[in-house]
Amino acid sequence: MDSAHVPHVLVLGGGFGGLWATRALASAPVRITLVDRTNHHLFQPLLYQVATAGLSAPDIAAPLRHILRKQSNVTVRMDDALAIDLGARRVSLAQGNLDYDYLLVATGATHAYFGHDAWAEHAPGLKTLDDALAIRSRVLSAFEAAEREDDADARRRLLNFVVIGGGPTGVELAGTLAEIARHTLPREFRRADVRSARVHLVEAGPRVLAAMPPELSEKTRLQLLKLGVEVHTGKPVTAINADGVTMGDARIDSRTVLWAAGVAASPLGRQLGVPTDRAGRVPVAPDLSLPGHPEVFVIGDLASVQQDGKPVPGVAPAAKQMGEHVAAVVRDRVRGIAAKPFRYRDYGNLATIGRMAAVVHYGTLKLSGLLAWWFWLVAHLFFLIGFRNRIIVLVNWGWSYWTYQRHARIIVGRRDREP
Amino acid sequence: MDSAHVPHVLVLGGGFGGLWATRALASAPVRITLVDRTNHHLFQPLLYQVATAGLSAPDIAAPLRHILRKQSNVTVRMDDALAIDLGARRVSLAQGNLDYDYLLVATGATHAYFGHDAWAEHAPGLKTLDDALAIRSRVLSAFEAAEREDDADARRRLLNFVVIGGGPTGVELAGTLAEIARHTLPREFRRADVRSARVHLVEAGPRVLAAMPPELSEKTRLQLLKLGVEVHTGKPVTAINADGVTMGDARIDSRTVLWAAGVAASPLGRQLGVPTDRAGRVPVAPDLSLPGHPEVFVIGDLASVQQDGKPVPGVAPAAKQMGEHVAAVVRDRVRGIAAKPFRYRDYGNLATIGRMAAVVHYGTLKLSGLLAWWFWLVAHLFFLIGFRNRIIVLVNWGWSYWTYQRHARIIVGRRDREP
Repeated sequence: MDSAHVPHVLVLGGGFGGLWATRALASAPVRITLVDRTNHHLFQPLLYQVATAGLSAPDIAAPLRHILRKQSNVTVRMDDALAIDLGARRVSLAQGNLDYDYLLVATGATHAYFGHDAWAEHAPGLKTLDDALAIRSRVLSAFEAAEREDDADARRRLLNFVVIGGGPTGVELAGTLAEIARHTLPREFRRADVRSARVHLVEAGPRVLAAMPPELSEKTRLQLLKLGVEVHTGKPVTAINADGVTMGDARIDSRTVLWAAGVAASPLGRQLGVPTDRAGRVPVAPDLSLPGHPEVFVIGDLASVQQDGKPVPGVAPAAKQMGEHVAAVVRDRVRGIAAKPFRYRDYGNLATIGRMAAVVHYGTLKLSGLLAWWFWLVAHLFFLIGFRNRIIVLVNWGWSYWTYQRHARIIVGRRDREP
Repeated sequence: MDSAHVPHVLVLGGGFGGLWATRALASAPVRITLVDRTNHHLFQPLLYQVATAGLSAPDIAAPLRHILRKQSNVTVRMDDALAIDLGARRVSLAQGNLDYDYLLVATGATHAYFGHDAWAEHAPGLKTLDDALAIRSRVLSAFEAAEREDDADARRRLLNFVVIGGGPTGVELAGTLAEIARHTLPREFRRADVRSARVHLVEAGPRVLAAMPPELSEKTRLQLLKLGVEVHTGKPVTAINADGVTMGDARIDSRTVLWAAGVAASPLGRQLGVPTDRAGRVPVAPDLSLPGHPEVFVIGDLASVQQDGKPVPGVAPAAKQMGEHVAAVVRDRVRGIAAKPFRYRDYGNLATIGRMAAVVHYGTLKLSGLLAWWFWLVAHLFFLIGFRNRIIVLVNWGWSYWTYQRHARIIVGRRDREP
């Protein structure tokens, strides 16, 4: 086949949406360019483990071109997508331009501070490996600073940790931080009383894990308390600075504040010529194409999809399903067949809380505690890409389980050394 | 015992010298403070594996306070030693001061550019984990840039790698880079012909691995050639800029130049009141104490020690032996016993070249090739700290061996993304 006649599918983003779409087009008569600003696919559900030193960065990431090495119709390009010209069917990248016949925009979401961009400096968020390593440095450095500190009051402040946002990421971070302070570190410090460290989880809404049924939110709250986390619900944050967090009348002094509260869709969504929703997501047609542009698709966290009156959640399984759906639509379109509408299949919702504690919700099934944790562990190992990664992650988890140790407690990156 | 009467031993540096001294003082009637600017002990002999994406940073590093958690007479402090006041017996740190009864200066060496500090920007060196991650980013990004590049000439330049310095680090880096270009990456790139990448090893002196017998240098050169490395000996570098390296009349165009040529002792050595040698090392008394200051010791790469008319080499076994010797001297001194002179026991010299190739020299024994590589592998695994690290490193090596893959090919750190 002459390459001039092979449709070019340009995929922006190598997350769950973009990568699953690319793989589902393996046998399609198209050529694909997959563009990502990093060189890797990231297994984001375990990113909090890198931030809390339980796993190394390469344990949960794999080079995109390695994953796709056997798929000969794909070219992987590490580059930044800057602008989309829908009329010319062209994307401007930091290092050049690419024309497309079909465009899949799957650039996901980033953390957002609801207009308080000054908070970013004091309360880093968790979306990329760089974020995770920066948070790891900050957390470990706070313990180091406390050990150096002579003043008891200052030491206490250094051992106050605040996690803002009671969603899955906030719950995971808070639970794991409490575990580190209670079990991992105490024997290793001589001056700082690490066991007295306080971990606060602050949530604006009335309960944690709001996407779960209320009884599982309550179970989560109780398991967090058991781990030593102080849970503050119904407390919207009003200010953050270098010394702590203000929630209306209440104030927590802290030098280590982590942000897990807000998500905003990738700014590329604003270039697609349709009004986005409040979080910057793009409303799409039933087949996930851009209204008025059947050759452009928006998938994953960037897409706003309603189903049965409810939004499809911004989770990995939804992104994968959208990716596979759009691949099918493109395959059909190339053959002149009309597109089918997307339908999200909900395989349940699960979140981990800390050592041996998790919650699982699927239909009428509601699990919590140890059984839920095993469920979570098996599911996450199963979905982790690459045989080697699974083995290594399992060895690391086994090791952590028996010893309470977290092997990746290595501070790298000088700029983050002082908390 | 009243703590006022317990001598305070201040150890600066948690490398092989400082850590081995600290451990050897476990049962001594002293209290110890170990200061390091990082939070970890680094197994430097495998640092090139982190730089070349074969291992993760936490695989070859362990938190100092974790290593020493059971040694109750030690306090670990993450801090920067800035100045030493020998008269007041006090060290100024970035975050405070510490008085000492005994001082062990074990702050090692860093890479040096022989007065050409402007070269640092274009030719990063390899001494810390941050260095290794920066080199990893730079190398991987060069392949990514080549894949993006449309111009064939520019692509060729992007796939030119230069390693400066034919010592063990330079040989390891060059051999591994060639292996990556020949075996790890080719199938994954669609536009760049990665197999055509050229790896140059540039050495000012007449042969590589100058510390080895000439026949092993020659074996090393032949093994490097077999791996695809172009070896340039007798070529002192005269200039380095963003586009390449000049050696007198010769010029190699390259956007990725790595520096493994020069080492200078830690600047703290200049504060000890004695003239240092050309590399900044401090000449010490036979018991490794500072002349005129029997309470101060200098060990490891910072110490200039002559034995039988030859310098004791700057290698890990020498640093460990010095650390243990000084610990014995301090123990004796506390009990009023005179110090014995240090005596270096040479257990041989070994260097790895690449996949299944190494050289070993011990007395009259000279090995090269596969047998030497197995020797090197067992020795390095044996000396790696921590049972978990050994298991993980072995799994990773086994994996790399069978698949030619290097699992840690993850680019982190935005500033180094463009080569």
